[in-house]
Amino acid sequence: MIKAAVIGASGYTGMELSRLLILHPDVDAAILVSRTDAGRDVADVIAALEGMIDARFVAPEDADVECCDVVFFAAPGGVAMRDAPGLLARGKVVIDLGADFRLRDERVFGEWYGEHTSPQLLSQAVYGLSESARADIKKANLIANPGCFATAAEIALLPFAKWAAGAIIIDAKSGVSGAGKRTDRADLLYAEQHGNFMAYATSGHRHLPEIKQTLADAGMTDIDITFVPHLLPTSRGIYLNAYIPLKDGAPPPVRIVGEYWKDEPFITVRDVAPVLSQVIGGNRVRIGAMTSNNNKTAIIIAALDNLIKGAAGQAIQNMNIRFNIPETTGLC
Amino acid sequence: MIKAAVIGASGYTGMELSRLLILHPDVDAAILVSRTDAGRDVADVIAALEGMIDARFVAPEDADVECCDVVFFAAPGGVAMRDAPGLLARGKVVIDLGADFRLRDERVFGEWYGEHTSPQLLSQAVYGLSESARADIKKANLIANPGCFATAAEIALLPFAKWAAGAIIIDAKSGVSGAGKRTDRADLLYAEQHGNFMAYATSGHRHLPEIKQTLADAGMTDIDITFVPHLLPTSRGIYLNAYIPLKDGAPPPVRIVGEYWKDEPFITVRDVAPVLSQVIGGNRVRIGAMTSNNNKTAIIIAALDNLIKGAAGQAIQNMNIRFNIPETTGLC
Amino acid sequence: MIKAAVIGASGYTGMELSRLLILHPDVDAAILVSRTDAGRDVADVIAALEGMIDARFVAPEDADVECCDVVFFAAPGGVAMRDAPGLLARGKVVIDLGADFRLRDERVFGEWYGEHTSPQLLSQAVYGLSESARADIKKANLIANPGCFATAAEIALLPFAKWAAGAIIIDAKSGVSGAGKRTDRADLLYAEQHGNFMAYATSGHRHLPEIKQTLADAGMTDIDITFVPHLLPTSRGIYLNAYIPLKDGAPPPVRIVGEYWKDEPFITVRDVAPVLSQVIGGNRVRIGAMTSNNNKTAIIIAALDNLIKGAAGQAIQNMNIRFNIPETTGLC
Amino acid sequence: MIKAAVIGASGYTGMELSRLLILHPDVDAAILVSRTDAGRDVADVIAALEGMIDARFVAPEDADVECCDVVFFAAPGGVAMRDAPGLLARGKVVIDLGADFRLRDERVFGEWYGEHTSPQLLSQAVYGLSESARADIKKANLIANPGCFATAAEIALLPFAKWAAGAIIIDAKSGVSGAGKRTDRADLLYAEQHGNFMAYATSGHRHLPEIKQTLADAGMTDIDITFVPHLLPTSRGIYLNAYIPLKDGAPPPVRIVGEYWKDEPFITVRDVAPVLSQVIGGNRVRIGAMTSNNNKTAIIIAALDNLIKGAAGQAIQNMNIRFNIPETTGLC
Repeated sequence: MIKAAVIGASGYTGMELSRLLILHPDVDAAILVSRTDAGRDVADVIAALEGMIDARFVAPEDADVECCDVVFFAAPGGVAMRDAPGLLARGKVVIDLGADFRLRDERVFGEWYGEHTSPQLLSQAVYGLSESARADIKKANLIANPGCFATAAEIALLPFAKWAAGAIIIDAKSGVSGAGKRTDRADLLYAEQHGNFMAYATSGHRHLPEIKQTLADAGMTDIDITFVPHLLPTSRGIYLNAYIPLKDGAPPPVRIVGEYWKDEPFITVRDVAPVLSQVIGGNRVRIGAMTSNNNKTAIIIAALDNLIKGAAGQAIQNMNIRFNIPETTGLC
Repeated sequence: MIKAAVIGASGYTGMELSRLLILHPDVDAAILVSRTDAGRDVADVIAALEGMIDARFVAPEDADVECCDVVFFAAPGGVAMRDAPGLLARGKVVIDLGADFRLRDERVFGEWYGEHTSPQLLSQAVYGLSESARADIKKANLIANPGCFATAAEIALLPFAKWAAGAIIIDAKSGVSGAGKRTDRADLLYAEQHGNFMAYATSGHRHLPEIKQTLADAGMTDIDITFVPHLLPTSRGIYLNAYIPLKDGAPPPVRIVGEYWKDEPFITVRDVAPVLSQVIGGNRVRIGAMTSNNNKTAIIIAALDNLIKGAAGQAIQNMNIRFNIPETTGLC
Repeated sequence: MIKAAVIGASGYTGMELSRLLILHPDVDAAILVSRTDAGRDVADVIAALEGMIDARFVAPEDADVECCDVVFFAAPGGVAMRDAPGLLARGKVVIDLGADFRLRDERVFGEWYGEHTSPQLLSQAVYGLSESARADIKKANLIANPGCFATAAEIALLPFAKWAAGAIIIDAKSGVSGAGKRTDRADLLYAEQHGNFMAYATSGHRHLPEIKQTLADAGMTDIDITFVPHLLPTSRGIYLNAYIPLKDGAPPPVRIVGEYWKDEPFITVRDVAPVLSQVIGGNRVRIGAMTSNNNKTAIIIAALDNLIKGAAGQAIQNMNIRFNIPETTGLC
Repeated sequence: MIKAAVIGASGYTGMELSRLLILHPDVDAAILVSRTDAGRDVADVIAALEGMIDARFVAPEDADVECCDVVFFAAPGGVAMRDAPGLLARGKVVIDLGADFRLRDERVFGEWYGEHTSPQLLSQAVYGLSESARADIKKANLIANPGCFATAAEIALLPFAKWAAGAIIIDAKSGVSGAGKRTDRADLLYAEQHGNFMAYATSGHRHLPEIKQTLADAGMTDIDITFVPHLLPTSRGIYLNAYIPLKDGAPPPVRIVGEYWKDEPFITVRDVAPVLSQVIGGNRVRIGAMTSNNNKTAIIIAALDNLIKGAAGQAIQNMNIRFNIPETTGLC
């Protein structure tokens, strides 16, 4: 049985991760650390756990993770890079749901996020897109969980390494929970987003460099990517459209994608557009692979739950892989 | 022509008030004061004014209201009570959209809001439920605009002074903009309210004492009122249900209410439930007056736009009354 | 292991019931009958079953329920009363999620629903509010699942048989799925309900007679009830407020309700208002029991998921009781 | 003063058009024709007209449009092509908000919509994108109002005739009112779209041929266009992203678009993404013109209200042009 800790357990991804850990059949203890909600009954904050857990959130300074096998970080940037060296030294597995260890190149990290305080760990971290990195995850002690948009984009684009003929457009939409449980931004208020829709970060979103890094690893090194994220007036979900110019002679996109991910339990590929509600609440990714202009342009749509496959679910999937548990355990 | 200033012009009620003033045919200047958005182009913040105004928000310390005939406060509690004495001394009309001057009894004010710093003004302020207080508003220099729930409740209940037989239940619902453009409360985030609904302030809401004061003025002094407000997952609108036990021999409620408000341009009375969307964007109140248990219980539903009739629109209506302009000018 | 059939499996309650049956550990076969979706892959319609079931919806005329132990009706009114006699004669247990068998009095049934074609069964059906009727459900072959509003109202009001002093007000709100997957009403369209709210059936809702029947069985025979339902702009959930005048000397409502339902696994009682999102997706009922006017009025709020505890979940709970399976099996 | 009739006055575009006509200062009579709502009080259906109009909807067979100068069609496809010849023969101006006269090529029309019953009129109709076709609209008796997506797409793309270097991607999102007030589709129900998002018509949307026709007229004849529309969980609004590969040496897109539309009262161009709520309720189009990949790709976002600039507002704008009234009259 696994013992786990969650640092940042009462944010949106932290709550979802805590819920999945408490219900996980191979996890028998979870220390839920939250500065904001320290001392509060967990089931008061995570209603789905009502009657299933009798525990309280622990303040960071009171959290003793010595007994834990794995420590998850669902905390703001900087916390994981500060604490990871000590935890790794004591033999813990660290899974960071944030961005601290996603980029291998310290210089690129600096451009997007500022200075890194544990750069020596960057090369040792495994970028945890579960479906692509299983072999490495099995042996990793430091796993960097991909961003939510990045998970969708990489699953949509990786199959096209051989077939992409030019600049790729990504038009991505995320439910508002993707911005986190923040109280410093009026634009995330209900009265602002209700009936609304907007693009943001049009000059560059932080998930772009990790997408480029993953594609480059797969051989897609010279391809321009335009990535425009939007806030969707829902609480959850990512719906990401990738438009890819195809080389002459490319097979139908549904076949390209279907074969690439063919044995994956969490990925479904069809030739029709997915519907966002189909993936909410589970770890599934639904891909619609269509085409336009006589097969000259692939339209690939990936839908997933940003808090599950885009964060907490994939973190559990990575824990399962790392601890040799069947990969779908505790996930649906 | 009237010159006006708005203190707190970039909150939700302030924005709506600013829009109505800019478009008002008898207002030729409006100084829009906002600490948060000082220096920003007004049309950037209030999109509906695009192309209609070339002005910027002014910081409080830079606002010279000397030229103004009327100063509106759409600011947090305390600002109006601090500034009103000076403005009144200089001959300005003050219309406060907040609660600083709604209660005449300093002790009651203290119970709900804390200490009042200008208690000498409490008795001089006119409580501005436009339809009930026209004669007083015409002569007032200090007008206390009613709360949004209070406006709906009083319009629903005032007709029943003669007919209410016992304890009244008010079950009220408000769109989330009613809580203001606040960034200190995570529960107002889109991701929290989407698909959600909740009661709050079940042990007592601040609009209750002003409702009781207004009803007492109308002779309803001994009646228990239970008032339960809720947050509705919309951005705007109030939908307030009042349940009133009727005395034997009471006429049908639709007649009681219909006759009470019979010549009011902004109040419509029917014997069917209103639909919230019917009142969004205008200064109208729609009343549905029904009955149950063989006319023993009146079901009175009042629907209005919390930011217009519940705040900025009623403030304009009061300005119109005070400055002898036709009451519906600039309103719809 | 239980074999089950669902008549009307692709409506909102039918889909939820089908999902719960497929995932239920003691059910090993489910025939899913749907005229609308006959022949379609079940997982195409009920996305949550993707990868968990390889089956198609069956047309009513092709459905052979001979192997089944239990037949659920999630069909429009009239179907269950037509088919139940034959099924009961062949020894099947029938659980009707509709209203056909909820009222024991044929005359009352007629007033609200029209003529009953199997009136001889009315007295034999057990009204299946699980928590109140366990003993009878255990022996019943015809179980009438309560309405969604009725479930909430009865759980809120039953504890007050000794303490209610007069007319009760019920102000109830339901997500739009409560109206069913209908295509004959423009008012259920997204463009109509978005940002909207409205009362309906103010002159009398069909759930009122079953509420009165249940309360009368508990000794509350002479009490007037005003029941006003509303459409809430969410897809799921019921939030029902009951306002009850209390007799002198009544204990605090939280104690009255808490003691009445004290060992119930699916009912939680607190002295604060519940939040609707806390109950979505599960079979739980959250009660907030508050008071106003110096304990003269009880404010009882019941929140539940209309498609689960208000329909499919309670049907499963009743099946569990009837077939001697632990009552919480397959529910959360 | 103009006398007008609206055929199909109680659908979503018909209601909006009726409202704008009733409030239009140069229109003194409007016959509102609706089969569905024949005989109903107009203000009962169009709440915003409460107190402003005392009229009823007229059944088609009772509508005498002989007195009218202009007849608008907001009806299902086929009605305008059936009635237009007679109306034109009697000297009426016809403005069709549907698709019957948008395509000049009968063969292309047939591919997308089926047989045309008045093909002789196709060449005579003017495609009424107001900003592009003013001179022709002034003289036209048959005006084909563009589709909502088409309006946004054409305003976004027309400026790029000289600068587009290759295949264009259009990722477009529309509020659900864009699908009309239909009761034959369960997927438009509130319970389906709440919290949801989906692409549709990925194999080809009917607005694509009119977009291509307009672009071809402007010289963009050989450019592939991929057009993917989506349903957005709002009631109103279009948010359309166009991604355009730019020729070397192209000026910044904000300058290309800004100069192209520079004197247009309803079009605002900036170098930041628009926010959908900014355009709801008015006839404005907001363009955000950005760039990526070192000015190799233009990101052009157009936001508008689908029922106003995308339908009823543009129809009024075209009426204003045709009848020599200042173009912005009755619009905001």
